[in-house]
Amino acid sequence: MIESVRKKQPLVHHITNQVVMNFTANGLYALGAAPVMAHAKEEVEEMATVANALVLNIGTLTAEQIEAMIIAGKAANRAGTPIVLDPVGVGATSFRTESARRILDEVDIQMIRGNAGEVASLAGITMDVKGVDGAEGVDGVALASKAYEILNVPLAITGETDVLIDDHEKMTISNGDAMLTKVTGSGCLLSSVIASFLAVEQTLFSAANAVGFYGIAAERATEQARHPGQFQIALLDQLHQVSGQDVEKHIRLSKQFIGQGDHV
Amino acid sequence: MIESVRKKQPLVHHITNQVVMNFTANGLYALGAAPVMAHAKEEVEEMATVANALVLNIGTLTAEQIEAMIIAGKAANRAGTPIVLDPVGVGATSFRTESARRILDEVDIQMIRGNAGEVASLAGITMDVKGVDGAEGVDGVALASKAYEILNVPLAITGETDVLIDDHEKMTISNGDAMLTKVTGSGCLLSSVIASFLAVEQTLFSAANAVGFYGIAAERATEQARHPGQFQIALLDQLHQVSGQDVEKHIRLSKQFIGQGDHV
Amino acid sequence: MIESVRKKQPLVHHITNQVVMNFTANGLYALGAAPVMAHAKEEVEEMATVANALVLNIGTLTAEQIEAMIIAGKAANRAGTPIVLDPVGVGATSFRTESARRILDEVDIQMIRGNAGEVASLAGITMDVKGVDGAEGVDGVALASKAYEILNVPLAITGETDVLIDDHEKMTISNGDAMLTKVTGSGCLLSSVIASFLAVEQTLFSAANAVGFYGIAAERATEQARHPGQFQIALLDQLHQVSGQDVEKHIRLSKQFIGQGDHV
Repeated sequence: MIESVRKKQPLVHHITNQVVMNFTANGLYALGAAPVMAHAKEEVEEMATVANALVLNIGTLTAEQIEAMIIAGKAANRAGTPIVLDPVGVGATSFRTESARRILDEVDIQMIRGNAGEVASLAGITMDVKGVDGAEGVDGVALASKAYEILNVPLAITGETDVLIDDHEKMTISNGDAMLTKVTGSGCLLSSVIASFLAVEQTLFSAANAVGFYGIAAERATEQARHPGQFQIALLDQLHQVSGQDVEKHIRLSKQFIGQGDHV
Repeated sequence: MIESVRKKQPLVHHITNQVVMNFTANGLYALGAAPVMAHAKEEVEEMATVANALVLNIGTLTAEQIEAMIIAGKAANRAGTPIVLDPVGVGATSFRTESARRILDEVDIQMIRGNAGEVASLAGITMDVKGVDGAEGVDGVALASKAYEILNVPLAITGETDVLIDDHEKMTISNGDAMLTKVTGSGCLLSSVIASFLAVEQTLFSAANAVGFYGIAAERATEQARHPGQFQIALLDQLHQVSGQDVEKHIRLSKQFIGQGDHV
Repeated sequence: MIESVRKKQPLVHHITNQVVMNFTANGLYALGAAPVMAHAKEEVEEMATVANALVLNIGTLTAEQIEAMIIAGKAANRAGTPIVLDPVGVGATSFRTESARRILDEVDIQMIRGNAGEVASLAGITMDVKGVDGAEGVDGVALASKAYEILNVPLAITGETDVLIDDHEKMTISNGDAMLTKVTGSGCLLSSVIASFLAVEQTLFSAANAVGFYGIAAERATEQARHPGQFQIALLDQLHQVSGQDVEKHIRLSKQFIGQGDHV
């Protein structure tokens, strides 16, 4: 799958937060995709129309930016372009929660990627959240079915174990490393990696493959770097190196088909 | 002290400049705090209220951002949350100087962290400033008393020797390395490190401890990295590693109690 | 030439995109210049007036930012300060193309630095563009004369071979490494490096020297780092290390004087 991404070099349009723009762009270049950041209302429709995927990330949202996201999202919908929503910090303020819900109301999202706290808040399921990277130790597997039922959008809930769900399947992936929690934007970059894979194939397996690829890159980076500065650099290097064969061999993925009413 | 920060993992709310957001967030994760960046007027009150500390940094200020800073600052004041103001580039333009003074007028700031040129400009003391990281070779010790008298806010004036002052004490810290001047946002990150420490204990000694901790991390980073690219990464790694014991052992701190009128 | 930059430490005012601000600032500190980022309409005139060079980069443009660029540009023109325009992604949306052309209409630009696709789009020459870093394999040498004739602004068209042109000369430089295309903002940083050199001497040779210096730094970085994470760091380290003697020895520059009508 990563080989197809590298071959296609999908153009991934981001309307994203100011903290992670540089790291996200470098991550996508490293793995072989082509990032573009553009958030002016005057140009997002045009950019989203030519892009192969769109990422909406509300980490440093403003009212104006939300408008731009909705314009871009509608354009992507018209073009059949997959959209990943990263609801950074939803639950921390009501502005974030309301903005993310408004996007979901007005735009057809192909995948939400967030941590357990963010997804729970978005779905209105009560949980404690600390900051934008909080909610550790939550059972993402149990949460996924409940949140999917409410939101009815394919989900990637990432944490110690990552859980992906749509209306057919539930998948868990247990690659990755705790060092990821020490690098800002590691979740945001994952959202963009998923978008790069969805640009090539719009399936839950494609997203799961992206999550596994990213987790394996993190595992290898940890072998090279034991502290967060070096780890951040090693992660970029590994995104450049991990192959499709590596993913096939090292992904720890388990699938579960969902029968009618199974996740209800 | 750093151990208490690592235990508490304070949530540090930033309204800060676009140049340093990523580096600041990574620095705080590395040392063990939890950064959050949020600047929309619609959410800063809520975010500042739940945070354990607030950093206001005017490095890429706009009129709208200053409004958000004042809203957040007032919320932090109501919640008793410590605020660090970083007056980046004050003196370089009148908009910066006026904006920083307006914040001081409307918000109760617990500490100003700046270089000698910035603090002097803020206090209206005449000095030459070059860019945002200028004013080397200035006697921060002499400046501190004069500026404190005018501003009446605890100060951390950083440079070759760092000087901290409040109404009780003056402290100098002589850790650190000149390589810090080669990394953008190294001063901004220090402001955030101070905020992380003030979130645990609101004393001048706590701030001094933050400055010493940061300087020791820089010294160790220089042992590993002789050029600015590698140094930046090594600094993050050292913020992750330097212990409370290291600080006690290696901090070069001298204190001076201030008698009545002593700094007048 | 780089020694003169290091001696003068020119203050380079940027109104630039949010993706590359940090990397650009670190790159300039590494080589010995003094970056400042400021984009508020209230202060750009003052900042551009004291700066030694101005960089206008439209990578994450907004309507408000374009206003600020024009205010700053006019101030720089009045002060005789050289301006480098980086037309990031021109051609990708009509807003970018129109904004860049509006800047050219209202401000006297000393150099445009872009890739072949961007420069061609700006000049209205038909080419295919992919993303903001696209248009590989284009003959920049052939493009340069045609684009210069239309735009009548000195150009640096960068790619596998870099081409610089003004009304007297055309120069090609063939230093650099393909790894640069794997790091976001490597072109943007080059624009700022050129601005730093023009701050010292406003000639085409000065800009060519900047391009050679940067390419040599990239070549050396590739010797140390074979993947994009490490390369990014090694590039900063090399910008700190490459000397004027290194440039003289390793620059692969060829010049061609332009006779009357020669580039028509």
